[in-house]
Amino acid sequence: MNATPEDFLSRRAVVSEESVQPFPNSKKVYIEGSRPGVRVPMREISQSDTVTEYGGEKNSPLTVYDTSGPYTDPNVAIDVRRGLSSLRQNWVDGRNDTEVLSDFSSAYTRDRNNDPSLDNLRFSHLRQPRRAKSGQCVTQMHYAKKGIITEEMEFISIRENQRRQAAITPIVQKQSLGFQHPGHSHGAATPALITPEFVRNEVALGRAVIPANINHLELEPQIIGRNFLVKVNANIGNSALSSSIEEEVEKMTWATRWGADNVMDLSTGKNIHETREWIVRNSPVPIGTVPIYQALEKVDGVPEDLTWEIYRDTLIEQAEQGVDYFTIHAGVLLRYVPMTANRLTGIVSRGGAIMAKWCLAHHTESFLYTHFEDICEIMAAYDVTFSLGDGLRPGSIADANDEAQFAELTTLGELTKVAWKHDCQTMIEGPGHVPLHMIKENMDKQLEICHEAPFYTLGPLTTDIAPGYDHITSGIGAAQIGWYGTAMLCYVTPKEHLGLPNKDDVKEGLITYKIAAHVADLAKGHPGAQQRDNALSKARFEFRWDDQFNLGLDPDRARQYHDETMPKEAHKVAHFCSMCGPKFCSMKITQEVRDYANAKGINKLKDAVDSGLEEKAGEFKQQGAAIYQKV
Amino acid sequence: MNATPEDFLSRRAVVSEESVQPFPNSKKVYIEGSRPGVRVPMREISQSDTVTEYGGEKNSPLTVYDTSGPYTDPNVAIDVRRGLSSLRQNWVDGRNDTEVLSDFSSAYTRDRNNDPSLDNLRFSHLRQPRRAKSGQCVTQMHYAKKGIITEEMEFISIRENQRRQAAITPIVQKQSLGFQHPGHSHGAATPALITPEFVRNEVALGRAVIPANINHLELEPQIIGRNFLVKVNANIGNSALSSSIEEEVEKMTWATRWGADNVMDLSTGKNIHETREWIVRNSPVPIGTVPIYQALEKVDGVPEDLTWEIYRDTLIEQAEQGVDYFTIHAGVLLRYVPMTANRLTGIVSRGGAIMAKWCLAHHTESFLYTHFEDICEIMAAYDVTFSLGDGLRPGSIADANDEAQFAELTTLGELTKVAWKHDCQTMIEGPGHVPLHMIKENMDKQLEICHEAPFYTLGPLTTDIAPGYDHITSGIGAAQIGWYGTAMLCYVTPKEHLGLPNKDDVKEGLITYKIAAHVADLAKGHPGAQQRDNALSKARFEFRWDDQFNLGLDPDRARQYHDETMPKEAHKVAHFCSMCGPKFCSMKITQEVRDYANAKGINKLKDAVDSGLEEKAGEFKQQGAAIYQKV
Repeated sequence: MNATPEDFLSRRAVVSEESVQPFPNSKKVYIEGSRPGVRVPMREISQSDTVTEYGGEKNSPLTVYDTSGPYTDPNVAIDVRRGLSSLRQNWVDGRNDTEVLSDFSSAYTRDRNNDPSLDNLRFSHLRQPRRAKSGQCVTQMHYAKKGIITEEMEFISIRENQRRQAAITPIVQKQSLGFQHPGHSHGAATPALITPEFVRNEVALGRAVIPANINHLELEPQIIGRNFLVKVNANIGNSALSSSIEEEVEKMTWATRWGADNVMDLSTGKNIHETREWIVRNSPVPIGTVPIYQALEKVDGVPEDLTWEIYRDTLIEQAEQGVDYFTIHAGVLLRYVPMTANRLTGIVSRGGAIMAKWCLAHHTESFLYTHFEDICEIMAAYDVTFSLGDGLRPGSIADANDEAQFAELTTLGELTKVAWKHDCQTMIEGPGHVPLHMIKENMDKQLEICHEAPFYTLGPLTTDIAPGYDHITSGIGAAQIGWYGTAMLCYVTPKEHLGLPNKDDVKEGLITYKIAAHVADLAKGHPGAQQRDNALSKARFEFRWDDQFNLGLDPDRARQYHDETMPKEAHKVAHFCSMCGPKFCSMKITQEVRDYANAKGINKLKDAVDSGLEEKAGEFKQQGAAIYQKV
Repeated sequence: MNATPEDFLSRRAVVSEESVQPFPNSKKVYIEGSRPGVRVPMREISQSDTVTEYGGEKNSPLTVYDTSGPYTDPNVAIDVRRGLSSLRQNWVDGRNDTEVLSDFSSAYTRDRNNDPSLDNLRFSHLRQPRRAKSGQCVTQMHYAKKGIITEEMEFISIRENQRRQAAITPIVQKQSLGFQHPGHSHGAATPALITPEFVRNEVALGRAVIPANINHLELEPQIIGRNFLVKVNANIGNSALSSSIEEEVEKMTWATRWGADNVMDLSTGKNIHETREWIVRNSPVPIGTVPIYQALEKVDGVPEDLTWEIYRDTLIEQAEQGVDYFTIHAGVLLRYVPMTANRLTGIVSRGGAIMAKWCLAHHTESFLYTHFEDICEIMAAYDVTFSLGDGLRPGSIADANDEAQFAELTTLGELTKVAWKHDCQTMIEGPGHVPLHMIKENMDKQLEICHEAPFYTLGPLTTDIAPGYDHITSGIGAAQIGWYGTAMLCYVTPKEHLGLPNKDDVKEGLITYKIAAHVADLAKGHPGAQQRDNALSKARFEFRWDDQFNLGLDPDRARQYHDETMPKEAHKVAHFCSMCGPKFCSMKITQEVRDYANAKGINKLKDAVDSGLEEKAGEFKQQGAAIYQKV
């Protein structure tokens, strides 16, 4: 935990073995697009054959969305001192609208880079920063509005389809009710096959964002929007009390291994600048930050000493490192602050509390609000995506959906329009603590007020009474709000409210949120989402234990739990498990029922039922009535 | 795990220390009713004072529902060889409608009792069984329909109110949307104060059940119905592969410690009869079973060898031991079986699979169905509650809400009417695996088809892809269906699909389900449900760390997680935590904002806002508009 810089750099790689091991029975595959470098990584899980009377029946491998980047590709050499390779270099070069700067634009960055005492900590292969040429806008939204399909958009269209699977079973995916937002039905449909043009159109309309800073060339692009797969964000970052650079880089790779689509570096401790450089250079997923945290460090933690100049330099510092999205709490207005005074838990957002204090101290609106258009210009020059922060989100069930929360949301809606005027990609952050029956109002209002910009929520936690289990209290709310249309879910770990998450907590939080996101995808009827459920259930029903483990979100834990009561290798093919014992397995009995039904020709009966023969159904009814009379 | 009988009986008590320790800062209190013996146990959690400028401000203790029975009362001596004391003895005696039998009515029971090889295993203080006098019905529903308020009903009315708390804060509980079932609005309202008469009426209407066998005198009565607190059931039980009597008794006390309102003993291994006796005699909560499991053991695991006579003797055997509810899969009809042949995962209910096989083998309806009225007579003679099993529930997302499932539900609805004709209390079991958007249909159909009999669901699991985390996949569905009106949630542990749960799994499953149940209570607007959330959030906001831990569902884990990063005792009063460090705490900053607001007279502004002065609001708007123009 307290590794010295020497320790840190003496290692060949900071990433642990457990973070880079390929998943069991899985291999990295790449789907090629139409243009150079559009080569989309996926994970292919192979399956064993189904044992039948007449020999094996093949089960096609299942391809799943893969956020883990090159780390799980045994053919890629990992050296965190050099960072990942620059997948997007040629794409960005090819657009010919950016320029490579001779030095960093941020005064703070230059100071850090020239400080010899930091030599041991500094990432040694700093790349020259890149910025939009004067007068150019380089955002994905800008291209989209102009009708240009970027390589990023094509990459995403392939990725979202998760490659068409060979049919696993003849089971048709159930019709989904989908989510229905009154007045927004035009945005509710996801096509059966996601095309590059569909991606472009959603980005042009502001309904989806592609966080992809032109300085984060290592990025494997992904999209956040409610007509795509629901995404998950993992927070990492050190604090004054805990954690080192090494730990944070490890947490980032660990988080992407377990499905983080995005990672926020919320560091508030030492060496924030250097920590972030290491993280971005090694991250295959977009990195988000809350720049006000670092700005506050620069004024020694005194909110009222913050200035626009310090904040501006921080934005540029981070933008030139390649941060893909910034949380900006520009909606905390002076007149909203008193609305929180009667709350049970006041202001619980760190950014919100800082800005509230600043507003009161200066008796004026914050520089985030008054300089919002200046910020837009910076965002547009690097394609940093706005994540408009909910500084007044409720911190308890008692404060949910109150005046302060919705007042801020109104301002975020206004700011969205301003950002879009600059072609800046924008998403909106949401709560927080909200009981189950008040969640839908959040989604409805957000869509209405923020013009369908993607919603990005923290949970919400649906009760306050379970510290130590807030991944669960919030996973319940996350699944719900994801179903209603939230595009990205910010995970909550079991340590929420209690302490800084360690690696185990990061994994526990992520698996919980991958569940919530997938549950929402199923409920929304996302094309192909049910393939994995079907494959796993088929494996389960056929006692293909290894396949059941490997197709799940966490093969390691499934295997470990199974082996606690049935450790022997022979049990992996046993047609029973420890829950019921050998004679008592319902699945085994069901198979016997099927065999019996076949032997007795009852399949014909079934066929009749399947053909929907009303006549037959009526017959059943009569029989049933008769039998019932006998009782 | 494999304790010999000698080991077992040589112990003073089989219950472990950790199962009987009182919770931190908690004491057992009893609320007296109007009649002798109506003395309702609750847990009172004391809190420390809020530190203010002018000294301490008192925080009232919080009283919470307590399922843990006498085990957590240090004034009660526990001896599992004798069992708990007979709380209900005088109540049952006083009704003068039962008789104590000279011997057990079940031939099987008599054989077991006379077998000297079982002396070492047998519970040594067997009580003589009790049965309704000839021609009498002794069910709570029978009394309720006659207008009689039993002691059990009064006990429950006090218990459900969780005692009126002194106001914690002036915060008013938010208006709840409640659940609205079209056509059933008459059943949707829970009164602010639950009266004995309200309890009686709900039981009379069949909307709630009080599982309370006249042979389970140790029971602390509770109620299952959708206008009461949502209840949780924990499954325990040995299997052929694992577990001992000692373990099961320990699991039962452990489960009630962590909030199990009901416990099902699903044993399928050795010595089922003796295991159950130990469990019932020591259980303060209702015990449920699936009698077909034991009946199958009696025919050496061959379903087609089952007979009505064997089953009937098993029902009586268990009823005279004091089992409070029986799962009976009487809805699995011959004509429904072929409907499952096309399913991805066939029949996954053990009881359902057994009965399906029996029906096919005998080409007739099952004895559960044809002898249903005989079964009703047995249930009525001991007041065993029906839990009509969903033998055809879906075992995968692909099979959710299909024809077989809803066909069986129709039969369960018909059987409910038959059971009610006999004044038998009845609840209905539900799925299973159901995606989020298909859950509501389950609840709507169940209310409609089963005439508002309480619904008792297993989860449902909202995705199949996370073996090892099915407490979470199902907790999401459980919260949802609880909100819609499900009265009891059957827990799922992390070991689901993989193995038999150990004590840690039982606890993890229970906390998850207590969360789901509470989330549903909040969403339904159950009177007083939010008190605990408010008390905990106030403690959290005021940095009363110990109170935050103690008010939560699992004080031990909250404290442990906190201490991982901030172990020192001094940190327990620190106004920050390890997540943000000393300078960066949003709650601390919020307090400063409040102080500042007070000093600057901004409280007057707030007061204006609170009084809803439209004029003032308009002024804000103008200011805001002006500021916004400046951007």
